[in-house]
Amino acid sequence: MSKQTDDFFKNVISHAKEYGFVFPSSEIYDGLSAVYDYGQLGSELKNNLKTYWWKAMVQLHENIVGIDAAIFMHPTTWKASGHVDGFNDPMIDNKDSKKRYRADQLIEDKIARYEADGKVEEAQQLQADLDAALNADDLSKLKALIEAHDIVCPISGTKNWTDVRQFNLMFSTQMGASAEDAETVYLRPETAQGIFVNFLNVQKSGRMKVPFGIAQIGKAFRNEVIARQFIMRMREFEQMELQFFVRPGTELDWYNQWKETRLKWHLAVGGDPAKYRFHDHVKLAHYANAAVDIEYDFPFGFKEVEGIHSRTDFDLSQHQKYSGKKIQYFDPEINQNYVPYVIETSIGLDRLFLTVLCNSFEEQDLSTADKQDSRSVLRFHPTLAPVKAAILPLTKKDGLPDKAREILNRLKIDHNVQYDEKDSIGKRYRRQDAIGTPFCITVDYQSLEDDTVTLRHRDSMEQERVAAADLEKIVADLVGWKNLLGGL
Amino acid sequence: MSKQTDDFFKNVISHAKEYGFVFPSSEIYDGLSAVYDYGQLGSELKNNLKTYWWKAMVQLHENIVGIDAAIFMHPTTWKASGHVDGFNDPMIDNKDSKKRYRADQLIEDKIARYEADGKVEEAQQLQADLDAALNADDLSKLKALIEAHDIVCPISGTKNWTDVRQFNLMFSTQMGASAEDAETVYLRPETAQGIFVNFLNVQKSGRMKVPFGIAQIGKAFRNEVIARQFIMRMREFEQMELQFFVRPGTELDWYNQWKETRLKWHLAVGGDPAKYRFHDHVKLAHYANAAVDIEYDFPFGFKEVEGIHSRTDFDLSQHQKYSGKKIQYFDPEINQNYVPYVIETSIGLDRLFLTVLCNSFEEQDLSTADKQDSRSVLRFHPTLAPVKAAILPLTKKDGLPDKAREILNRLKIDHNVQYDEKDSIGKRYRRQDAIGTPFCITVDYQSLEDDTVTLRHRDSMEQERVAAADLEKIVADLVGWKNLLGGL
Repeated sequence: MSKQTDDFFKNVISHAKEYGFVFPSSEIYDGLSAVYDYGQLGSELKNNLKTYWWKAMVQLHENIVGIDAAIFMHPTTWKASGHVDGFNDPMIDNKDSKKRYRADQLIEDKIARYEADGKVEEAQQLQADLDAALNADDLSKLKALIEAHDIVCPISGTKNWTDVRQFNLMFSTQMGASAEDAETVYLRPETAQGIFVNFLNVQKSGRMKVPFGIAQIGKAFRNEVIARQFIMRMREFEQMELQFFVRPGTELDWYNQWKETRLKWHLAVGGDPAKYRFHDHVKLAHYANAAVDIEYDFPFGFKEVEGIHSRTDFDLSQHQKYSGKKIQYFDPEINQNYVPYVIETSIGLDRLFLTVLCNSFEEQDLSTADKQDSRSVLRFHPTLAPVKAAILPLTKKDGLPDKAREILNRLKIDHNVQYDEKDSIGKRYRRQDAIGTPFCITVDYQSLEDDTVTLRHRDSMEQERVAAADLEKIVADLVGWKNLLGGL
Repeated sequence: MSKQTDDFFKNVISHAKEYGFVFPSSEIYDGLSAVYDYGQLGSELKNNLKTYWWKAMVQLHENIVGIDAAIFMHPTTWKASGHVDGFNDPMIDNKDSKKRYRADQLIEDKIARYEADGKVEEAQQLQADLDAALNADDLSKLKALIEAHDIVCPISGTKNWTDVRQFNLMFSTQMGASAEDAETVYLRPETAQGIFVNFLNVQKSGRMKVPFGIAQIGKAFRNEVIARQFIMRMREFEQMELQFFVRPGTELDWYNQWKETRLKWHLAVGGDPAKYRFHDHVKLAHYANAAVDIEYDFPFGFKEVEGIHSRTDFDLSQHQKYSGKKIQYFDPEINQNYVPYVIETSIGLDRLFLTVLCNSFEEQDLSTADKQDSRSVLRFHPTLAPVKAAILPLTKKDGLPDKAREILNRLKIDHNVQYDEKDSIGKRYRRQDAIGTPFCITVDYQSLEDDTVTLRHRDSMEQERVAAADLEKIVADLVGWKNLLGGL
């Protein structure tokens, strides 16, 4: 990260805390590593992002429905999905510092140092060796590379390493009180399997016809070895996933269609299109026949926000095998039974939240020849903003608060609106800018005479005079879901 | 349960599964005990219940904000709250059957049998002894009562019991990959503590003034020994909790106010008022100075749906003690620092869901002299219904589907609406009745001539003719949040 982007990111994080978007979890106990809480404004923004996704996926598509499966699932689910055996990171411990690292990341850090030092050949060779070792799942080869390239522990500075071992990323717990019934269950590491095991139930009870999709929003958990970068990589996080079931052979057409649909969804929020790109997976997971990430240009570089994967019939077939139940679809158009193929779109809600913060946060210099001035502003899309409008009486007296509250009461059922009477009107505008409120409605002395108010626009800071009686319609039009979903 | 209510409850459960409201979790693997998944209609209904609560608590109150804290919290949280030491059930094992039971529930079952047999005195005496043992936390006394009253294991029929031991209901897991950093963390058994540890952050960043509240919706987990009655008592469940912070000494006034406010909220949904009652706690938890349940008359009797508790300053004081941070509020009105007192309102979302199902489900005999007929109907409040309106072309041809889809497209951004062209119109109406859709919009041949449609009302089954151009306003008025929240 350059100094500039580094500063920007630090400012985003501190702004997010200062205004109640994101707090470190259990902060009074000095926090819990890689876990965060969403505050009074963060929870509203997060809810709006969920609603945006749910409406775009479920309500706009006749053939997509949602579910809400539990975090706890039958343990065999994770045998079938491959997570019990294969959801591992290669770990190595330094015996002196007692610190544990991901072996592949130690090697990648070394490659980066070779590159920084202009040792291009060494970097390329080590990258090739790393890829070979990972592809062959060869743990001793990873250890050998660490030793051969003199990689030392960043803490102890020594090369006193243990062997490389696999470390499963699933959290487990014991369920059931009864002595003989207690069993090990996992906290789901992805929400997708909750959809796959419910395929038959949803297809039958909902009379769904292929192609159709099942969408879900929910928590997932991974015991990440290296969790970092604020809410970018957390141990507890939230996913928004669609599994779209299609006729075998048509999956790549659907894959391409979902790629475009999903990118369009991100861009509708209003970020700079240059900050988004597709990144094709070169190495495909064993279950996939095509995979791409939608990456966003975070302050620390382009990183995945959403993945689109053509998962073939891997998951449904595995569950068919492990459960002994026939998980198939009879396609009346071709008079044939088959296990549907699956296109998955999987978005990290917390990462999405971070893209919206990074896209929106701005520190503006408003100085004029006469006067220094500046403001912090979160330029959220009005439909996503946590607070849609602030209703502000110019002063605390002469009946202005009563009139402001009367407006508040008319708007508050349909919109999250705020009343504020403290401090000067200029200070209150700045406060609303800082939390991203797109509109301020000010009740002044003229309001008492002609029943008009001023409507201030966050981005332009311009004000217009409107009839108080029209506010319900004006606000509904300005912040309605049509503004975001209408073009999709 | 009487035969009639037992049948009714069975019908509710099977209807909920048949139409995609609630499925047993991981059903293809024969389910996971006391865990359920919400299907395509259940997830919509659950979301609507969340929105109803959130709007009523957060949006309607100037002085209440929401948060969304993580499930994982710093382990000291649960030392401070008392859950590590005190969140136990007294358990006993039968050595022959190897089955484990809650000792107090074995005794309560015995009391019920005494009562059924007309042995009133024995029942009263045993109840008194049980209360005394529980109040004294005397595990050996529980064992003695089981032996003295010849209580046998329902499976083995023997009295071959182990001692009574405490069993902690929290699920635990290991967090952190690093050898020396791994620590035991818990899945939160209640969401409340996520609010308490964030008290300072929210109060300061949100500039909140006592009295004010923090609301939260989220998952909680309890390793219940005996989990049963469908979604009534689950190991993974969802809570909607408000912690309302008040000046010490005013807490009982607020307690009474919240009692009334919360009951009104339940009744606004439209259930029979006779099915709701207050049930005061006789034995108060150590942290409470008043507590009441709102109970609902389920098919298996009156049970708690929501609890309202005056928690004093217990939680904030404990966190102050364990964290060493000063958790206080400076009250400018009385120029004094204090630890605020807390009124909690805590609702079980899954139980609430079950009250709505039980309140709404009806099997109606529609037979006339000429013809036998019946329907299953879910009489949800229109604002809570999973599908707000179905748009139905009378036939699949002559352009009726196009016109129906044109209406669908106008409504689908703001409402969850459904298109259905399969089967006769009568069958389609019945299907919509069975999933609780309050309105059906039918496009017929007259629609092509004069641009009107029929609007059918679920409850009365009556139809009226309306202009297609007015549908956006008609539907918005019929299902808008004002209908539920306007009277609160």
